[in-house]
Amino acid sequence: MTAADTPSTIDLAVIGGDGIGPEVTAEGLKVLDAVLGDDIAVRTTEYQLGAARWHATGEVLTDADLEAIRSHDAILLGAVGDPSVPSGVLERGLLLRLRFALDHYVNLRPSHLYPGVATPLDRAQISDEVDFVVVREGTEGPYVGNGGAIRVGTPAEVANEVSVNTAFGVERVVRDAFARAQARPRKKLTLVHKHNVLVHAGHLWRRTVDKVAQDFPEVSVDYAHVDAVMIYLVNDPARFDVLVTDNLFGDIVTDLAAAITGGIGLAASGNINPDRTAPSMFEPVHGSAPDIAGTGKADPTAAVLSVALLLEHLGLDDPAQRIAQAVAADLDERSADAAALSRSTAEIGDALAARLS
Amino acid sequence: MTAADTPSTIDLAVIGGDGIGPEVTAEGLKVLDAVLGDDIAVRTTEYQLGAARWHATGEVLTDADLEAIRSHDAILLGAVGDPSVPSGVLERGLLLRLRFALDHYVNLRPSHLYPGVATPLDRAQISDEVDFVVVREGTEGPYVGNGGAIRVGTPAEVANEVSVNTAFGVERVVRDAFARAQARPRKKLTLVHKHNVLVHAGHLWRRTVDKVAQDFPEVSVDYAHVDAVMIYLVNDPARFDVLVTDNLFGDIVTDLAAAITGGIGLAASGNINPDRTAPSMFEPVHGSAPDIAGTGKADPTAAVLSVALLLEHLGLDDPAQRIAQAVAADLDERSADAAALSRSTAEIGDALAARLS
Ligand SMILES: CC(C)[C@H](C(=O)O)[C@@H](O)C(=O)O
Ligand SMILES: CC(C)[C@H](C(=O)O)[C@@H](O)C(=O)O
Repeated sequence: MTAADTPSTIDLAVIGGDGIGPEVTAEGLKVLDAVLGDDIAVRTTEYQLGAARWHATGEVLTDADLEAIRSHDAILLGAVGDPSVPSGVLERGLLLRLRFALDHYVNLRPSHLYPGVATPLDRAQISDEVDFVVVREGTEGPYVGNGGAIRVGTPAEVANEVSVNTAFGVERVVRDAFARAQARPRKKLTLVHKHNVLVHAGHLWRRTVDKVAQDFPEVSVDYAHVDAVMIYLVNDPARFDVLVTDNLFGDIVTDLAAAITGGIGLAASGNINPDRTAPSMFEPVHGSAPDIAGTGKADPTAAVLSVALLLEHLGLDDPAQRIAQAVAADLDERSADAAALSRSTAEIGDALAARLS
Repeated sequence: MTAADTPSTIDLAVIGGDGIGPEVTAEGLKVLDAVLGDDIAVRTTEYQLGAARWHATGEVLTDADLEAIRSHDAILLGAVGDPSVPSGVLERGLLLRLRFALDHYVNLRPSHLYPGVATPLDRAQISDEVDFVVVREGTEGPYVGNGGAIRVGTPAEVANEVSVNTAFGVERVVRDAFARAQARPRKKLTLVHKHNVLVHAGHLWRRTVDKVAQDFPEVSVDYAHVDAVMIYLVNDPARFDVLVTDNLFGDIVTDLAAAITGGIGLAASGNINPDRTAPSMFEPVHGSAPDIAGTGKADPTAAVLSVALLLEHLGLDDPAQRIAQAVAADLDERSADAAALSRSTAEIGDALAARLS
């Protein structure tokens, strides 16, 4: 990245969404302002989307919203989902619609076990060097919405869900994952699937990995069934470097990955369109947590680390790394100091911003 | 169960299968003989199925095999799968064919964290009372083999996998899970799915749980997305009592459940036909582990506990409980004594048999 490429303004769409979503995105923006200082201006446009909008208007995401969102450099999203809205309406109509419409085919979910951070694992049994990234496919698989049901509500009901996997869709995400593995010190890629049962999709994924591997001779490749990954993640998470997998397996694996590396309060993600034909979207892995909304208990760290991924995507590696360092220092402080451990959402954001100003 | 129901002979089909499979079933049978003593005779018929048979004959499971297997009271299976056989051939042609043909719609997978047993979790952070059972649907979902692919090997390939869920199939397994919850002290049932994305299948599962719940007013019911279950299982596994879920989610969740409760060396399972229209099949959750086959390193405890589930299914609760107690005592001994910790497959079987004779 040369200086010429550095943007002078970042034009962000902000979708706070539901529950704790707006609370954590506010802290993410606070930290973004702090890290950029006067060098780069941040312009934000808030989009009121989620449960409140749906209750008020019946709309989830209109075509006009989508076109407006498309015009920004990137999107910062908080969380989507509320128990007052029927299951699936916001998740599919808003979150998944954005991922699909903006062609976010790389759903990037890094996991790093910071020293001192609480993990449910027995630290004595695992290596300290847990640092891997899941490249989750974002636009195919069982998430395509190609299911359907007949005779609903009768004893003869049949409800199907179809996982769609294309050579086009699998190859582009596998290629992205290889490039990421190539750029990391360990240069290792693990395909995660269940090809002994899901033979058609599984064999497409395998063949694609074998083919793309030829273009990345330095990357070592292995394979693990998704069920075996469950075991590896709790017994030996340090074995992983880059994992590539489908949309549903990626969803499941990354929640476990988050849980063992400090919890979903720390897990960031990027919904990335590597071709840059539309803005990418950055969001914490956690949900809207309506039970703690408004209490100040939400940890904004995942949103802050999502901002770091956003900066990285825009080519701003230096401020991205400074955020990651500030978070590491803050987590150190929090693990050493009981008072710091009980800080509120805004206090965590303030502490991070203070480190960066 | 009255004395009149007690069988005088148990007629077992034994499918050792691949890798460590035959080694662990041998110990299972040793323990079975020991616990039954002279009270009940065990007649076993070995079926040579798996990789060796496939290499020799090209056959996986013939119709004649299947009919012969059907005639037994129950099946004890070791493990299926070998790297020398193309992925899916044995898994789908043998293991899944048996589960489907014999209508094993309840795949029962109990998890119990024995005191002193090694777990990757930090014991200080979790309750000691981890004791739950996953009721995994065994004859539907993404396991039905209704996928397919077009233009295979070309850049225009599309590979689909279809998850089929029927009111008939979902209701019978949900009903079984409720009956199991009802019979347990805590009487709690958790539906595990992903109904915010897989809306058709997910809503069928939810509606079915709501409906069947009316027949089990004492059972308390809740719901968790499969990704959230990942987090719960490592942070607070004691929250679960009975979980009911589909075939694929059940596969994934039970490997994590096994990993946190002592590893797959201890995880038993029953593929149960509750209507008793065909024999049920009992097998360790672990695979064939070809890397340790023949070394005597395999822990036969999962196969032994599968024998206990087999006895329970045949109404022989007393010997089933005695096996469970012997295993608990043996695990205690193993955790206290380094020499006992390094016992071989046969030595573990001998030690358990000795406790029961
Ligand atoms: C809310 C839900 C649709 C979403 C998903 O399944 O992708 C979430 O779990 C996630 O991981 O981002
Ligand atoms: C071997 C495989 C087909 C099987 C499954 O997926 O059911 C195994 O993982 C299991 O859990 O019994």
